Amino acid sequence: MVAARLIAAHPHGELIFATSDKWRNEPLEVRLGPTMPASLRFIANAEALTVDGPLDAVLLATPVEVSFALAAAFRERGVAVIDLSGAFRLKDAAAYPRWYRVEHPYPQLLAEAHYGLPELTGPAPRGALVANPGCYPTASLLALAPLVRAGLVEREGIVIDAKSGVTGAGRRGEEAYAFVELDADLRAYRALEHQHTPEIAQALAVPSLTFQPHLLPISRGLYATAYGRPKHGATAAVVAECLRAFYARAAFVDVVPVEEVRLREVVGTNRARVAATADKDVVIAVGAIDNLVKGAAGQAVQNLNLMFGLPEAAGLDALLPQFP
Amino acid sequence: MVAARLIAAHPHGELIFATSDKWRNEPLEVRLGPTMPASLRFIANAEALTVDGPLDAVLLATPVEVSFALAAAFRERGVAVIDLSGAFRLKDAAAYPRWYRVEHPYPQLLAEAHYGLPELTGPAPRGALVANPGCYPTASLLALAPLVRAGLVEREGIVIDAKSGVTGAGRRGEEAYAFVELDADLRAYRALEHQHTPEIAQALAVPSLTFQPHLLPISRGLYATAYGRPKHGATAAVVAECLRAFYARAAFVDVVPVEEVRLREVVGTNRARVAATADKDVVIAVGAIDNLVKGAAGQAVQNLNLMFGLPEAAGLDALLPQFP
Amino acid sequence: MVAARLIAAHPHGELIFATSDKWRNEPLEVRLGPTMPASLRFIANAEALTVDGPLDAVLLATPVEVSFALAAAFRERGVAVIDLSGAFRLKDAAAYPRWYRVEHPYPQLLAEAHYGLPELTGPAPRGALVANPGCYPTASLLALAPLVRAGLVEREGIVIDAKSGVTGAGRRGEEAYAFVELDADLRAYRALEHQHTPEIAQALAVPSLTFQPHLLPISRGLYATAYGRPKHGATAAVVAECLRAFYARAAFVDVVPVEEVRLREVVGTNRARVAATADKDVVIAVGAIDNLVKGAAGQAVQNLNLMFGLPEAAGLDALLPQFP
Amino acid sequence: MVAARLIAAHPHGELIFATSDKWRNEPLEVRLGPTMPASLRFIANAEALTVDGPLDAVLLATPVEVSFALAAAFRERGVAVIDLSGAFRLKDAAAYPRWYRVEHPYPQLLAEAHYGLPELTGPAPRGALVANPGCYPTASLLALAPLVRAGLVEREGIVIDAKSGVTGAGRRGEEAYAFVELDADLRAYRALEHQHTPEIAQALAVPSLTFQPHLLPISRGLYATAYGRPKHGATAAVVAECLRAFYARAAFVDVVPVEEVRLREVVGTNRARVAATADKDVVIAVGAIDNLVKGAAGQAVQNLNLMFGLPEAAGLDALLPQFP
Repeated sequence: MVAARLIAAHPHGELIFATSDKWRNEPLEVRLGPTMPASLRFIANAEALTVDGPLDAVLLATPVEVSFALAAAFRERGVAVIDLSGAFRLKDAAAYPRWYRVEHPYPQLLAEAHYGLPELTGPAPRGALVANPGCYPTASLLALAPLVRAGLVEREGIVIDAKSGVTGAGRRGEEAYAFVELDADLRAYRALEHQHTPEIAQALAVPSLTFQPHLLPISRGLYATAYGRPKHGATAAVVAECLRAFYARAAFVDVVPVEEVRLREVVGTNRARVAATADKDVVIAVGAIDNLVKGAAGQAVQNLNLMFGLPEAAGLDALLPQFP
Repeated sequence: MVAARLIAAHPHGELIFATSDKWRNEPLEVRLGPTMPASLRFIANAEALTVDGPLDAVLLATPVEVSFALAAAFRERGVAVIDLSGAFRLKDAAAYPRWYRVEHPYPQLLAEAHYGLPELTGPAPRGALVANPGCYPTASLLALAPLVRAGLVEREGIVIDAKSGVTGAGRRGEEAYAFVELDADLRAYRALEHQHTPEIAQALAVPSLTFQPHLLPISRGLYATAYGRPKHGATAAVVAECLRAFYARAAFVDVVPVEEVRLREVVGTNRARVAATADKDVVIAVGAIDNLVKGAAGQAVQNLNLMFGLPEAAGLDALLPQFP
Repeated sequence: MVAARLIAAHPHGELIFATSDKWRNEPLEVRLGPTMPASLRFIANAEALTVDGPLDAVLLATPVEVSFALAAAFRERGVAVIDLSGAFRLKDAAAYPRWYRVEHPYPQLLAEAHYGLPELTGPAPRGALVANPGCYPTASLLALAPLVRAGLVEREGIVIDAKSGVTGAGRRGEEAYAFVELDADLRAYRALEHQHTPEIAQALAVPSLTFQPHLLPISRGLYATAYGRPKHGATAAVVAECLRAFYARAAFVDVVPVEEVRLREVVGTNRARVAATADKDVVIAVGAIDNLVKGAAGQAVQNLNLMFGLPEAAGLDALLPQFP
Repeated sequence: MVAARLIAAHPHGELIFATSDKWRNEPLEVRLGPTMPASLRFIANAEALTVDGPLDAVLLATPVEVSFALAAAFRERGVAVIDLSGAFRLKDAAAYPRWYRVEHPYPQLLAEAHYGLPELTGPAPRGALVANPGCYPTASLLALAPLVRAGLVEREGIVIDAKSGVTGAGRRGEEAYAFVELDADLRAYRALEHQHTPEIAQALAVPSLTFQPHLLPISRGLYATAYGRPKHGATAAVVAECLRAFYARAAFVDVVPVEEVRLREVVGTNRARVAATADKDVVIAVGAIDNLVKGAAGQAVQNLNLMFGLPEAAGLDALLPQFP
């Protein structure tokens, strides 16, 4: 729903419709706040395909199965699709039963799909199907991929220990995500079976890796700590410089010392902070993002901007940090 | 469920059974932690009456309708009942339809019931039906009742603005009590219609009052700020001294300056902190408790101790403050 | 420092300088985030008067004594001043020793100053000295002033119970504001002596009132609950309608049911939510704002916009709600 | 100061004195709550050695340099010393300059000191100098040491990613630990240079390891996630069974599934929860404790109990979990 807010406030965008089976017929501004167009009401997911008039792009923040169907249908109409689910992120259709517990119905769309992490994969072609990266992969890859690409980290034995606010994991109506369950708590979850594991490995082009997420007692923010074995003289200075050089012209990524990679600096914005250090035993790379913005809706808008030749930060540079 | 923990750890108590329709047949220690007796499993509420063997007392932390039935049945057997619901708190059966949306089926038990706020109402007779006070009334009355009794506050126009952690209000499985709904939020709720309003008015013996609760983004702790019109020379010094004298020998109430009435000092314990001040326009009295301990289960144990002639703090003085 | 972010991001504004004795010579973007102009560094407060070039307005978020001096100096140069301290809020210079513990050196500036709560006091004249309201007065007055003006609340006996996040009260380097002191805590503070008391009374034109602030364990957000005695048939419907009519064309104030006045809906934005209800004993009016935005820097920008004939929401309508 | 509370409440203990340079002469109950003996006041650290009368043991929760001096002096008197600092944890005096930035003045005491993690190192002899483990080592070692000892994890390449509440890291009066700095934030700190690194490596008897701590926006609780390379057929079932067997008779350690290792289950108690799982690439072991109890003062009391032949849980089994 952050996506709807961002599109509604985008200087070059217009929000035509928004869907929600749960909130069907309710005014958007009641659910999303007074910055939403007063005239719009949610329609059901199934009604999306009945919307008249010209559409440049749709953003899908729907369950995998819904994304399969809507993406295929909008593709046939020539509408660009930015899909925020995992439906089109893995190249290997055979991985879907294991990681998403579903057979992939459109393997040919997997081949077409552009994995949209702009700092690493560049702009998508106009009209493309964009697989918008997961929140954990975004933070992990921004921190680690430049080092792996530069050959400073062994491709085997990578460990990513990630920590996410509740909006990255929780569904509202379940007891497990109640305030009194999560307040002041922390735990690991989905050990060795989180679906972002193959997505990160694919983007790093490594044969396997260990990814372990944890649930933080905060609403927003995602922090990834990656550990790898150093290679080719990867010292603290070399790995830090590698990141600085890689992101020298990046609009949204700040390379800073490890202790300045903090959730407070990025939450509320589309920015990422990354850092790396090393000694003889290990390379440590850390990344922090707002899981709902750079980890989801903000990155979707960034992908849209690049696809349509707009300034990369359009509709995103007005997102101010929230720390006092 | 804090009650079960306290009874299990009580030096003079033995936990015979615990009921939960939701957790039926699950071991208590799985749900309540390893301090629970390993051999006990939850039974259904309806099974409570089938438990064999001698029982001195039952604690009911059940919905009003369940408390009606169980209290009546255990009373017939001569078992003392400490009821933590509102089922027996109001003397006037006619008030139940308005405040609890239910006809009271046992008005005669209302007459018998002892309102169990020991600092104000003393020990209950052995074997009594005790109406254990609500969390808001406990904090409000501990702060305000001595001043009203002493004639330092007008009986008309009292306002109580109260703030409670989520355990005082929230049910786990509802979306409204999800972490992402409540984190960093605050709101007023049940304006002018909270069922603790007549309970406080009855205990203060005032014709009416204003009670407004608010929901805090924390798990435990309850803070009440009461405002009244000063009477009979109620100065800051006089009202503070009134509280000090009233609680001079109280086991669980500390009279301190206003700024030292803090949730952190009482959460985790059966203690209350209260303070009062005044100027020519107003008397302000504040009280803080742990809503789950002094505001519920701890007070129930305190009532039990007094009823059975045990030391008032038995099973309660090992509850240490949690602040660092 | 939120003010500096808002001015830097303002479509019609340009940030010329920012002062901080503590952070002197540090780049703004290091302290305030990457949305700040890369070329600017903090200068000392005392250097403000040495800045060359044309200035339309200065915003002062300085201690009262610093505001006295800087406001007087900039006034002499004909520069508009929006002062966020209490230095120019009270009309009565004689009140300063009691509430601010200082003699007011410029009583004539008190007479000139425009109290800048736009919904109640309208736009300031171009070039004016604007006393930007306090955070507590903003929330309290938005909720209560329309009802008092409409004669629906007695002018005597008003009680305001307010709750603020730590940014409204805390200084970073003091032990009393450490994380481990405030986490999960709540307390009342400055009972009967908070300096916002006379500011609210003056704006309501009432002879006296009771104002009691409390400190919440959250960073941002301020909630005020006001209680008054009903007058002239003030029913629940009448008081709610009074607010709705008063704010029918307000850019930043939403009138909603009491339970929908929530911090989460306003934090991160310049918006306020207000509600009112009543019974025969009491009128309750509630208001919620972000203390750093509508309660401080955002309102300052709103005052600037109105003073210079810009759209009231310029630079403020891109502030999106942060709740998920 | 949790230690003082625990000793004061201990059924077989008596608190003779407590020191604090900051709170010198203040009553203990003012600072630590009403469970403290009313007659005791803090004395200065330097006055500890002047206390008359028989002492069985002293607990030192003092900076390393103060512990050096006090431990040596009390040892000369034959008083048992439980030191909660790092002053006596490393066997190699030569490691102190690097990790603690100090020359160790008493290398012979390092040889004598008993590292007091009872589940791994057993009871200390009566009258011993006990080096009470650090909070991070306690959680890390409880999870990982049985697996390393059993040869299920390679001794090279171990990575420990740990997360701690603020009481584990923060000093109250520093700006970096202010509420508004830490609320809703998370960051890594002391990358590759935390002093608990050699302590964990020494206890595991491994040549080196990677230890990376992170600061959580909560007050209490510590969670460690350890990653190692599997050895000798370490499957998920094997590693879990290894922990279960190791802790079958442990008084304070519960072996549970990974998702049930949660801070909420241990905070407020002296208990630890641990779990392990594995696949072909990795062994993951997790541990959770209350950093102030099992990670510090509670473990000190456990060490005292064992040293003096008291029940291991004396004074600790009344610490109830705080989750609702």
